[in-house]
Amino acid sequence: MGRGLAMLFEYETPKLVQISNLKIGVAHRIIQLIILIYVVCWVLMYEKAYQYNDEAKCAVTTKVKGVGFTDAENIPGIGKRSWDIADYIIPPLENNAFFVATNLIVTPKQKLGKCAEHIHVPGTSCASDNDCNPKEIVHIGNGVHTGHCLLEPGKPEGVCEIHSWCPLENDSLPLGPKTYMFPMVQNYTLLIKNDITFEKFGVHRRNILPWSSKRFLRSCTYDKNHEEYKYCPIFKLSTIFEEAGVDPSIFIWGGVIGIDIQWDCDLDWDVKYCNPIYSFSRLDDANAKIASGFNFRYANFYYSNGTLHRDLIKAYGIRFIIHAHGKAGKFNIIPLTMNIGSGLALLGLVSSNNLRHYCAQYTPFKKNLSKSQI
Amino acid sequence: MGRGLAMLFEYETPKLVQISNLKIGVAHRIIQLIILIYVVCWVLMYEKAYQYNDEAKCAVTTKVKGVGFTDAENIPGIGKRSWDIADYIIPPLENNAFFVATNLIVTPKQKLGKCAEHIHVPGTSCASDNDCNPKEIVHIGNGVHTGHCLLEPGKPEGVCEIHSWCPLENDSLPLGPKTYMFPMVQNYTLLIKNDITFEKFGVHRRNILPWSSKRFLRSCTYDKNHEEYKYCPIFKLSTIFEEAGVDPSIFIWGGVIGIDIQWDCDLDWDVKYCNPIYSFSRLDDANAKIASGFNFRYANFYYSNGTLHRDLIKAYGIRFIIHAHGKAGKFNIIPLTMNIGSGLALLGLVSSNNLRHYCAQYTPFKKNLSKSQI
Amino acid sequence: MGRGLAMLFEYETPKLVQISNLKIGVAHRIIQLIILIYVVCWVLMYEKAYQYNDEAKCAVTTKVKGVGFTDAENIPGIGKRSWDIADYIIPPLENNAFFVATNLIVTPKQKLGKCAEHIHVPGTSCASDNDCNPKEIVHIGNGVHTGHCLLEPGKPEGVCEIHSWCPLENDSLPLGPKTYMFPMVQNYTLLIKNDITFEKFGVHRRNILPWSSKRFLRSCTYDKNHEEYKYCPIFKLSTIFEEAGVDPSIFIWGGVIGIDIQWDCDLDWDVKYCNPIYSFSRLDDANAKIASGFNFRYANFYYSNGTLHRDLIKAYGIRFIIHAHGKAGKFNIIPLTMNIGSGLALLGLVSSNNLRHYCAQYTPFKKNLSKSQI
Repeated sequence: MGRGLAMLFEYETPKLVQISNLKIGVAHRIIQLIILIYVVCWVLMYEKAYQYNDEAKCAVTTKVKGVGFTDAENIPGIGKRSWDIADYIIPPLENNAFFVATNLIVTPKQKLGKCAEHIHVPGTSCASDNDCNPKEIVHIGNGVHTGHCLLEPGKPEGVCEIHSWCPLENDSLPLGPKTYMFPMVQNYTLLIKNDITFEKFGVHRRNILPWSSKRFLRSCTYDKNHEEYKYCPIFKLSTIFEEAGVDPSIFIWGGVIGIDIQWDCDLDWDVKYCNPIYSFSRLDDANAKIASGFNFRYANFYYSNGTLHRDLIKAYGIRFIIHAHGKAGKFNIIPLTMNIGSGLALLGLVSSNNLRHYCAQYTPFKKNLSKSQI
Repeated sequence: MGRGLAMLFEYETPKLVQISNLKIGVAHRIIQLIILIYVVCWVLMYEKAYQYNDEAKCAVTTKVKGVGFTDAENIPGIGKRSWDIADYIIPPLENNAFFVATNLIVTPKQKLGKCAEHIHVPGTSCASDNDCNPKEIVHIGNGVHTGHCLLEPGKPEGVCEIHSWCPLENDSLPLGPKTYMFPMVQNYTLLIKNDITFEKFGVHRRNILPWSSKRFLRSCTYDKNHEEYKYCPIFKLSTIFEEAGVDPSIFIWGGVIGIDIQWDCDLDWDVKYCNPIYSFSRLDDANAKIASGFNFRYANFYYSNGTLHRDLIKAYGIRFIIHAHGKAGKFNIIPLTMNIGSGLALLGLVSSNNLRHYCAQYTPFKKNLSKSQI
Repeated sequence: MGRGLAMLFEYETPKLVQISNLKIGVAHRIIQLIILIYVVCWVLMYEKAYQYNDEAKCAVTTKVKGVGFTDAENIPGIGKRSWDIADYIIPPLENNAFFVATNLIVTPKQKLGKCAEHIHVPGTSCASDNDCNPKEIVHIGNGVHTGHCLLEPGKPEGVCEIHSWCPLENDSLPLGPKTYMFPMVQNYTLLIKNDITFEKFGVHRRNILPWSSKRFLRSCTYDKNHEEYKYCPIFKLSTIFEEAGVDPSIFIWGGVIGIDIQWDCDLDWDVKYCNPIYSFSRLDDANAKIASGFNFRYANFYYSNGTLHRDLIKAYGIRFIIHAHGKAGKFNIIPLTMNIGSGLALLGLVSSNNLRHYCAQYTPFKKNLSKSQI
């Protein structure tokens, strides 16, 4: 063996002294124990650091079922009628979200033309045409001033005329601020179809579990405390409202509810244990004093006698936002090695001379030792 | 130099012995080599730990092109007609998603009124008005009981009358469960415009690459095996179907296809190498025995003779969900230093006394050494 | 104490020599200082490694206000009329996105039938019926060939007849490529309601801050340089356009603007400091030479004289995509301990023998020392 090669396999090691000092010895072992517990319990067992991980690719589709009914004949633009999902789910299709109308202000058969602006719009009262600038747009108004002042006979003050969809919307709840149109929303059901794929592991799961039969799907409704029904993909909206803890005002003024579907899968176990957990929460502020609730306006356009008309609808209701997410882990030798390796490194750090280093300042130990060091 | 200052620059170092032990020496060098390989190959080269990273901000817009045609005169509510994107893309605009109808059940000219419930709805058969409770809502029914029982002359059993949109929808595929309306969906094309921005690095890229000419855009279609066409932003739907591996039933009953656009950019190279990779997969479970497919209902509302009507459409088709994501890395001295630093630390941990510590128990080495320790 | 137990508390420590070497001592202290600075400044202060973190659960709803007006009488299908949000926000409801139309091509009162294909569609010019294959679909055409060639008297060349929605759309901007229909889009306002929840810490915040009064909400508009108005949830679109740095062509040809709402909350401070920061940027490529802008087509369907009609609308405009995200941190003893622990470990690594190891090769120190090692 040449000298160069020999040097390659030479190595250095410190001279050691073996010491029996109870205090430091105990501290030494305790710290080793803590690290061992940390590595074994936290890193390996709790964080499952011996696993490779993957995020789920999720697809969610939903379908609401249920029949609504309004029987107050006097609701303007609505009347006594039945409502199905093509009526109250607006728009019919969204990505990870849907909206269920619970209260409507319908302004039917509007057509483009000229009419009087609402009196409460600022800058709209007038005494003569001079007060109404043609083409002026009041930001929170409903249209563009024509330049005319509409005076009623015998009154000194009138309102400016506007180009707009006439008649204007009467922006107040037809049933008043204490009740809402569709109490049957509680009975509607929601079917969620959620497919997830863990591409790294080639695992595909859906929230309609393989053991579900057609009969199960027809009869079940989600119940988080039931052994089987907690995996039923059909939810009564009343259950969702209850679990999200909403108060009844959400049906009157609208609101936002989050549906969370969580898949937390340990694929070292059978894939049948890889199941969704549902949770529900109100996302907007139920107690907000201003700008609370949720509503939006849309219109259905059509022609009548050759003229463009629209039905304007202001819809109050519940916006559901679905958030499906999942992660999976599976045993793999690489993360295991790395984590045990760094655990050993931590232990090594303590076991050798570092502990002494930190402890030395607090014990008379250094001085005793120094004799043998010289 | 005062004594205090001198102490500041004093330091301690362990006494070392230089040992030539082939076994341990070899183990020592092998472990050092493994760490070196790990640091250089894995950390620096594979994980590019010398780079700062950024996530892309993505914007996706899509446009489908293609003409559909139904020539079976007998399809109720449809007939012989041509279909363009304003007909078969529903709703017209979504965020990172779109829907292409392939099969439709159209129930035209429904109006609000009273008619007989479907006979298969449970609890709807009756012998007299007493069997039909007014205002009762059967959950999977189509409306609200009026309280009347509609009896056909000569038959003992009738059906309850309901408030509903009449005539009721006939929920069966007009062309039967073996075929679908729009075989030409295969020829439709999809233009995806995807802009990404790496804000940290001030880099903006789009999937219509800068070298694309108008002529290229007009003539190209995506082909993952072609040098240039793999960067063509126009996709024949048939290519997508093929790569996602869908079976023909998806066109009959609907389904969900994911379009994945991945940007993995190493900005240490020229930005022209920062290009998208497309992949396609079916997201819902093609083999599901229950609740498979994808469909939803929507309606077009209009007035006819002053009465509200609607065309109810149950649309089966393909829901595309687009997921664009990107990350970029660029050399930066800070992560390089930190990673080389921790690499050196790892090496140091091994080279010094720890190896001996772990090895000691398996070799006669400790005892030999112990003489010099005393 | 038995021998076994005694061994448990025995430990080994290397023999040390205390050396006063200015060069190495200084290097030693400098490296210790660097690690200390790194741990204290970077890990603890900048990265706040003493905190537990949580990601926000976000819900965003938006409402646009403003009146549009077109007074050019000659715009086909439009004319002199006023536009409100039910007209120009399409579709009325989206998740984290909305679209504001700024330029429209309206093709009113189309009905299904037969008409001549556009002359510029390739393969559509014909001399006789033989040139037009029945049921042929030209991909970028508007319908399906009927098989007839429509010849004008006295001309040798005609165009193929197609099944389609007739009359065909005239795909050119009615006001020309230099101007757009709704300059008043600048005056529209956008109300964003953004609720966030940090579930781990039980903290709920909304972008309408608790100190906001009704009066504040009615009068304020967002201004990033104003102490109070930078928390106003109402944005003039002109402010957004300005901050996103868009050029006027976005109003003519459309484009995509990103609205970013960032919550970066240190919950060790009062929750009132947990406030949103808004930023705006154009997401698509404003300078793209091809395929720039944003538009889509949709249709309103209705019956006229018992025949299905539609108004086809090609809408150019601005697509807003909202991205709300937040993270919060709060002091917790566990991450603090772990980070100080690993900081100490790093220090220990340097303080002991590793430094010597790296330095040894560059100093004459090893040889001097070797005497005392033997």
